[in-house]
Amino acid sequence: MINIDSLMRTAPVIPVLVVEDPARARPIAQALVARGYPVLEVTLRTPAALEVIAEMARVEGAIVGAGTVLNERDLDASLAAGGRFVVSPGLTESLARAAIDRRVPFLPGVATAGDIMRGLDLGLDRFKFFPAVAAGGLPALKALSAPFHQCRFCPTGGISEATAPDWLALEAVLCVGGSWVAAGL
Amino acid sequence: MINIDSLMRTAPVIPVLVVEDPARARPIAQALVARGYPVLEVTLRTPAALEVIAEMARVEGAIVGAGTVLNERDLDASLAAGGRFVVSPGLTESLARAAIDRRVPFLPGVATAGDIMRGLDLGLDRFKFFPAVAAGGLPALKALSAPFHQCRFCPTGGISEATAPDWLALEAVLCVGGSWVAAGL
Amino acid sequence: MINIDSLMRTAPVIPVLVVEDPARARPIAQALVARGYPVLEVTLRTPAALEVIAEMARVEGAIVGAGTVLNERDLDASLAAGGRFVVSPGLTESLARAAIDRRVPFLPGVATAGDIMRGLDLGLDRFKFFPAVAAGGLPALKALSAPFHQCRFCPTGGISEATAPDWLALEAVLCVGGSWVAAGL
Repeated sequence: MINIDSLMRTAPVIPVLVVEDPARARPIAQALVARGYPVLEVTLRTPAALEVIAEMARVEGAIVGAGTVLNERDLDASLAAGGRFVVSPGLTESLARAAIDRRVPFLPGVATAGDIMRGLDLGLDRFKFFPAVAAGGLPALKALSAPFHQCRFCPTGGISEATAPDWLALEAVLCVGGSWVAAGL
Repeated sequence: MINIDSLMRTAPVIPVLVVEDPARARPIAQALVARGYPVLEVTLRTPAALEVIAEMARVEGAIVGAGTVLNERDLDASLAAGGRFVVSPGLTESLARAAIDRRVPFLPGVATAGDIMRGLDLGLDRFKFFPAVAAGGLPALKALSAPFHQCRFCPTGGISEATAPDWLALEAVLCVGGSWVAAGL
Repeated sequence: MINIDSLMRTAPVIPVLVVEDPARARPIAQALVARGYPVLEVTLRTPAALEVIAEMARVEGAIVGAGTVLNERDLDASLAAGGRFVVSPGLTESLARAAIDRRVPFLPGVATAGDIMRGLDLGLDRFKFFPAVAAGGLPALKALSAPFHQCRFCPTGGISEATAPDWLALEAVLCVGGSWVAAGL
């Protein structure tokens, strides 16, 4: 199984997808893979999300995971649907322990130094920084990452095509999450 | 006992009160009820706060609760004084478990996705967003509430009569906490 | 052993030091003590940090502690090197319990009301506010400290010689952490 660090280094942008219609899943995934975005995060915010994951997982070259994973139940449903990694908006010990137990690549959201230290205590050092802009933007991630040189981040939330390069220029940032790459698909 | 969701839908503003003099408690509560604010949060920031809760609880039409509840001891003192709900600046597992055990409507403060997920793990989905303006304002609550469609919020901290409508326009917001409605009373 | 409150009242600024060369440690500490900054935080961000702590601890009048302490292992290494207090970017229960167990003055970072309440549950009421500017600046600390009148803070992160007085003017602030006082040493 691919580890979370390799996954974050696969492409500079992870599309964050909210898909309502499962019939659209494979064409969207194919288009994104063709554009150079093989790592796809399908958020569990729609009734069809698990079906969308299952459909996209069949697309050649796509590495499909689940976003908005809030608890162990979401985690197991995502894995059963064929998700290969999971992303959560925040970090709880309950979800982290479940993800570690299933040996699934896990990218939990953090917004504070306490979040990061709780993650490190659990053996995690790859994080989503969420909500990236609303939680203080670039200055906040710079300040937060300074004492945590071993950590790397995927900022997500409010990032656009125009601002992504500024985030990607930080040494602590391996990739960003964004919805703009899927606009119009 | 009224549940926390119904309580949040009772009036668009919950006055957050810091009252020093218990003799002022009943006139203040009567004036607020008359103005259409029956749900009253009395913060435990003054020596007289518990007495103020007891006095206000006798006012017809008032639904009086305690704010700045930090631990189980504060919680029990508030209930003994006649408080019918409790509000805290942040969410800890210890206080949440005590509130759930007493079956008292509980509105814990959250500021991050981790806070919200810890609340959901405990069965809570109604939260105070605190400090609302300083924690990032409207953009922060919009970004934070997006992955948590089942949650509803009472933003508190830095909200004024002028800005309250912007907060109340969000689907995720049921009411706001504010001190301006009690100014001059 | 000096307690954390006394330590925070010793000088208005705690220099936050990132020292690469142990040979520079004693001259830097001597210069800072001479300028009126006896409390020195040496961050564990360099390979030489523990050696730097040991060197600085020998300087007359210096009270040397470790910063960027992330876990029990860091804590014990800092104490073994002669550190007399420890500072962390965030608050975890695991580190707090270890610091309390060793009876070492401990200044954990907080950024939210939940962080502060978890600290209070552990018996802590002196905190670093980190990252001070990126976490919302002065308005955030004012809003956060309002419900916690018993707490006192050392804001750190993004504070300069020009802005320090504004922070120190707050009743809740006993001192600030800063790197500017060591610039050029």
